[in-house]
Amino acid sequence: MEKYSVIGKRLPRLDSVAKVTGDAKYAGDFFLPGMLHGKILRSTVPHAKILNIDTSRAEKLPGVRAVATGKDISDIPHGFIRAAPAPFFLRDKFSLAKEKVRFIGDEIAAVAAVDEDTAMEALDLIKVDYEELPAYFSPQESMALDAVRIHDHAESNVSVVISFHLGNIEQGFAESDFVFEDNYSTQYILASYIEPHAAVADFSQSGNVTLWLSTQTPFYDRTNIAETLGIPESKVRVIKPPVGGGFGAKTETHTLFTASAVLSRKAGRPVKIIYSREEEFTSTAHRHGVTVNHKIGVKKDGTIKAVDSKFFADGGAYNSHSAISMFIMGTLQNGPYNMGSFKYEGIRVYTNKPFAGGVRGHGAIQPRFVIETMMDSISEKLDIDPIEIRKMNAVKAGQTTISKFKIRSCGHTEALDKAVEEIGWKDKWRKLPDGKGVGLASMFFASGAAFSFFYDNPPSFSGVKINAETDGNFTLFTGTSDIGQGSETTLAQIAAEELGVGLNKISVIASDTATTPLDMGSYSSRVTVFGGGAAKIAAYNMKMKLFDIAADMLEANKDDLEAKNERIYVKGTPEKSVSIADTVIGYYNKMKEHLTSSGDYNPPADVGGEMRLDLGEVNISPTFSFGTHATEVDVDKETGEVKVQKIAAAHDCGFAINPMAVEGQIEGSIQMTFGQALLEDYRMEKGWSITNSFIDYKMATSEDMPYIKPIIVESIDSEGPFGAKEASEGTNVATIPSIANAIYDAVGIRMKDLPITPEKILRALEKKEGGK
Amino acid sequence: MEKYSVIGKRLPRLDSVAKVTGDAKYAGDFFLPGMLHGKILRSTVPHAKILNIDTSRAEKLPGVRAVATGKDISDIPHGFIRAAPAPFFLRDKFSLAKEKVRFIGDEIAAVAAVDEDTAMEALDLIKVDYEELPAYFSPQESMALDAVRIHDHAESNVSVVISFHLGNIEQGFAESDFVFEDNYSTQYILASYIEPHAAVADFSQSGNVTLWLSTQTPFYDRTNIAETLGIPESKVRVIKPPVGGGFGAKTETHTLFTASAVLSRKAGRPVKIIYSREEEFTSTAHRHGVTVNHKIGVKKDGTIKAVDSKFFADGGAYNSHSAISMFIMGTLQNGPYNMGSFKYEGIRVYTNKPFAGGVRGHGAIQPRFVIETMMDSISEKLDIDPIEIRKMNAVKAGQTTISKFKIRSCGHTEALDKAVEEIGWKDKWRKLPDGKGVGLASMFFASGAAFSFFYDNPPSFSGVKINAETDGNFTLFTGTSDIGQGSETTLAQIAAEELGVGLNKISVIASDTATTPLDMGSYSSRVTVFGGGAAKIAAYNMKMKLFDIAADMLEANKDDLEAKNERIYVKGTPEKSVSIADTVIGYYNKMKEHLTSSGDYNPPADVGGEMRLDLGEVNISPTFSFGTHATEVDVDKETGEVKVQKIAAAHDCGFAINPMAVEGQIEGSIQMTFGQALLEDYRMEKGWSITNSFIDYKMATSEDMPYIKPIIVESIDSEGPFGAKEASEGTNVATIPSIANAIYDAVGIRMKDLPITPEKILRALEKKEGGK
Repeated sequence: MEKYSVIGKRLPRLDSVAKVTGDAKYAGDFFLPGMLHGKILRSTVPHAKILNIDTSRAEKLPGVRAVATGKDISDIPHGFIRAAPAPFFLRDKFSLAKEKVRFIGDEIAAVAAVDEDTAMEALDLIKVDYEELPAYFSPQESMALDAVRIHDHAESNVSVVISFHLGNIEQGFAESDFVFEDNYSTQYILASYIEPHAAVADFSQSGNVTLWLSTQTPFYDRTNIAETLGIPESKVRVIKPPVGGGFGAKTETHTLFTASAVLSRKAGRPVKIIYSREEEFTSTAHRHGVTVNHKIGVKKDGTIKAVDSKFFADGGAYNSHSAISMFIMGTLQNGPYNMGSFKYEGIRVYTNKPFAGGVRGHGAIQPRFVIETMMDSISEKLDIDPIEIRKMNAVKAGQTTISKFKIRSCGHTEALDKAVEEIGWKDKWRKLPDGKGVGLASMFFASGAAFSFFYDNPPSFSGVKINAETDGNFTLFTGTSDIGQGSETTLAQIAAEELGVGLNKISVIASDTATTPLDMGSYSSRVTVFGGGAAKIAAYNMKMKLFDIAADMLEANKDDLEAKNERIYVKGTPEKSVSIADTVIGYYNKMKEHLTSSGDYNPPADVGGEMRLDLGEVNISPTFSFGTHATEVDVDKETGEVKVQKIAAAHDCGFAINPMAVEGQIEGSIQMTFGQALLEDYRMEKGWSITNSFIDYKMATSEDMPYIKPIIVESIDSEGPFGAKEASEGTNVATIPSIANAIYDAVGIRMKDLPITPEKILRALEKKEGGK
Repeated sequence: MEKYSVIGKRLPRLDSVAKVTGDAKYAGDFFLPGMLHGKILRSTVPHAKILNIDTSRAEKLPGVRAVATGKDISDIPHGFIRAAPAPFFLRDKFSLAKEKVRFIGDEIAAVAAVDEDTAMEALDLIKVDYEELPAYFSPQESMALDAVRIHDHAESNVSVVISFHLGNIEQGFAESDFVFEDNYSTQYILASYIEPHAAVADFSQSGNVTLWLSTQTPFYDRTNIAETLGIPESKVRVIKPPVGGGFGAKTETHTLFTASAVLSRKAGRPVKIIYSREEEFTSTAHRHGVTVNHKIGVKKDGTIKAVDSKFFADGGAYNSHSAISMFIMGTLQNGPYNMGSFKYEGIRVYTNKPFAGGVRGHGAIQPRFVIETMMDSISEKLDIDPIEIRKMNAVKAGQTTISKFKIRSCGHTEALDKAVEEIGWKDKWRKLPDGKGVGLASMFFASGAAFSFFYDNPPSFSGVKINAETDGNFTLFTGTSDIGQGSETTLAQIAAEELGVGLNKISVIASDTATTPLDMGSYSSRVTVFGGGAAKIAAYNMKMKLFDIAADMLEANKDDLEAKNERIYVKGTPEKSVSIADTVIGYYNKMKEHLTSSGDYNPPADVGGEMRLDLGEVNISPTFSFGTHATEVDVDKETGEVKVQKIAAAHDCGFAINPMAVEGQIEGSIQMTFGQALLEDYRMEKGWSITNSFIDYKMATSEDMPYIKPIIVESIDSEGPFGAKEASEGTNVATIPSIANAIYDAVGIRMKDLPITPEKILRALEKKEGGK
């Protein structure tokens, strides 16, 4: 008999029919009577003081109903990081500029009009007088001693410095037989979701505002909007309809969220704002581009003794997630390998460019590219099999890393073996003809953050409530945000399994700050472990209430009961049972109160604690995922073109609540890192974007994509619900180095600068040939 | 110091600004992308078999997206009465006719099209072949032995017979010195809310349907819609936006609610249906017109010994609330006077007319008109002051009536004294010049029904949940339906008082079957005692959770704490206190779970029990309200016109949670019975309405209305929250007889047939003069 009835099954997502039929209504689909359309006026200069904003002509344009500027909002800046010690977490962005603009695209004013054309026309009528300031488009320029400060609050244009030192790095290098040192760089990229940002705000005359937002973090938006508008948080209701992808960028309370509310308040009518694709390119949060200096000390036998890692990030004009980003780029290096000793310095600098924040694989993509490429070089130099060098240094289940990460489960070795088996490593590595090669890379990721960077006092990390209906159905309330990954189905499967009912018996109400329990949102791959954990607890608590009643009905001991097939049975006596629907009715008859349960997930005691970004010794997550990608490529030495043939992507998700969903996550996420490896590159000239459409910014299409073979590895974690861990951001972290290493196997060149374009390939080949 | 901070205050309603600014969005204001407009095809014959419905031409009309008939719905009829022994509670109505039509206006088919005009045009293209049957427009015709049966399930056209006998009526009449007997009749009237019925249904491709309905009973609608569509109840979500009045008629699941869902399912697009005013007149539930034979036996001293009461009602084509209506017309005669002994027979007959259901003052308006008019006659005949005869027979607090009603509190005497004082009775009664007079009448009403006529197993009679926020705000979830009476504010005031916070600290989420606790809806004047009772319990439970935390924080005993001014204090030590917001934060820090509470109100043990309509001995409500209206009129003997100068309306609401709201209820409700007394009359000819607009159907306007002086009497009930009882339907029950009695004082004629038109006055005056 199978262990589980609902989980571990390839079930279609609850929202699948709605999505494929066009039935799903996204934020931009909402229409309210009397609704206006809003547009944002953006800076056309990269750095300037605002001397004056004259909105009078715009206000007089027929059809314009409201014009808002920085004067219409409070003096509290907004941002993702709100609760934690300064200076790490400084919020530095206003929805509408107060005194300065800091990049081309920075928000200055917002207009609401009867239609979009009128709103656009009104933008042209707003006159902004600037006093232009020197603008800096690279960290090097920006950090110059005589540079004008981009933000007054900072002593220089360095926005964040994170550094820590684990173990004795001097000793580590001293004990090393070899020290490898190299420099790497990665580019700015976009999150590139299908659905652009959208907001509909309805500010009522009673002083309450309801917003439908395309967001990953409705509760954070609620607070940011309340603080920006200067009204109590309880006056703000944020509802997240279906979202067409977020990938981190929708964890920002971007200006349209607050501006739609401000305009609605001024106009007394609902306001819709949808960002154009161009605005998505120029004015939403990007992934950090970094330059890296990395030093690894190893013994002859391949044992890593010391790592010294310096990351230097171009942050753009505002802080956004900066402190977290820079911290993670360091701390997430502490897996899947033991580092012996570890030193890290992460510096992030303000420039007059669009700001960088958190994008899928946040903080892990850049260092993983560096480490896994260097592991390949080291294994070659030491003549150790690249699989073996990874296994010998690997962290193991039960271990605690020098960064204090507790490894509860680890499927790394299994993932590694399965990925190389799938790619045919034995027969291909170093054996394919010139121009063809295979490469591999492993990875490591968190299953959610054990810290609140936003709330001083969150009620819990995730809460779920369940209501029972007399027809045997249950309604599950969750504040988690399904942004396309299928998390509502995951939570429903977990609850259904625990309650012994089919998935069709669970309805989910999600992501409405007024009716669903507070949840921190969808980021850091937290939803399955945190939200799913809460769902399991809530379902268990519901089951216990039902067992109390059923024990009476069945004249049995509560401990002897089990729930399955929508009934409650006396174990071992299948003829003694009662339906769950009748048990619910029995509860109502007896208790005369509504039958509800709740569950709250909080990380265990050995996780979290004081968030010491300066020490780097803190267990940041309840549990960690592992995985390996093995990739086969063809490199055309004439054109420099890289054709990826196949990626075998093995991911240790602990336990696959829904294998089809895990595979979907693997396939979908690799599209992003595949693009970052080879195609995507956000480029600017003097602060102007020259890649602000999908014509110029090359995202991988289905034509470009290789065959992806997702491989699920299950390590059955002790902390995650039913053993599950994340299957979200971690699934794409190994892609880039596995491609880079395959290129090396194919043509013998080390690519250290992203994206790996044909031009760079040709230049490297030339250099290599020249060098011969 | 005042006893209370929030209750007992004249606070503006939470929704007042939204209502007066037009900000409130009613069901008809909803717009969904791709939404279609629906219209209903109605019968043009009063009684017929349907031989064939040809919808083919309508389906071909460009712009038509769906046509539905009785074939598209299940074989389960819908209705308000669903749970209880047959034959009393038979549901007999299909949303769309299955085989027969039974009145002009009966629903046959529904069309959804891209706009209203197209939908209307399509209706004309549907061809219905009828086999006409004899139609009956009066109970007398319908009850004839050879009459064709209107419903096959019934053995005759008598739809309901309710009869019971309390005490020994033969002995009662035998002991009487006088027996008074008389006949009365009342008319069909309409509920006449401002907002017509509206529905927006969005049936998703996933099989779930969400509806925004103008309704009083969203949870009943949910079940009726699920059963009509043949889908599980948990697939149906009903949301009640602000409602512009319902007055009982919106307790029916009228056809637009189900038809919009059926059409949306067929068309795959959202569908909106709004009833025209004409449809409101012809096809929604009306108040029963009755004819009455009433016999009262009294001792010389005025003591009532026996009442024999026969009510005969024209029910129209369908049962609707029938059994309840006929039961209440009997049982609610058992107050405010002791009857000695009581016999009742209520007969309701099917006719081929629009059906009658529950309208404000349901089942109390008709018998009260009879009894209070007869009390006036009796007092005159026995030469006993009309005030005294009422007081001597009055039920008293602490008493149980022969119908087993438990009288927990009674402000009848105080109401009587204050009403006559206000009208200047002493100086006016029998003392005003000819053509001027004063009259009085008392009344009695239930505070909600202690039975579920719909559910076999309601979770509770009313449930409320409260969530706590870290900013010291609370969100209150209630399934009760604010339909204009201001009940959300009432519940919020109760919770705020109990929690020791201001009204601005309470947000209310109401009337959404997916997110708010099940509640039976707004009818039978149940919301304050049931929903308010649940709110008080939920708030108390929340307070206790906060006290647990505050006791630790304040190092005090939990029993010594009190909540006020948004803080928790140690009683008698005002310097020791903590804010509620900080206590909530303290709770989160300590408990790491969401802070919520719930409360369920169920009637006490001495209420309810088995619903024996045939015995009439059952305590139908947790508590009862009392009141007296005293009225001054001018009667123009030339024209027959009655001008009501003033109504002094004293109502014992137990305790006024919000005096301004109670006064609003009194003023608003009297507009309805004032209209029924003098103006309103729904008339038909051969089954066709001849009064289907407000031109022909005379509703009282502000021009017509007398000066109303609301007088609040507080008897501080032991069961209602903070002593409150109903202030809803009861507030209008005494109006009609007080006007009739004033007319008698003015010109000496007894008006026994409603409405009291100038023609009837003139005829009665003629008869009186002729009689002289």
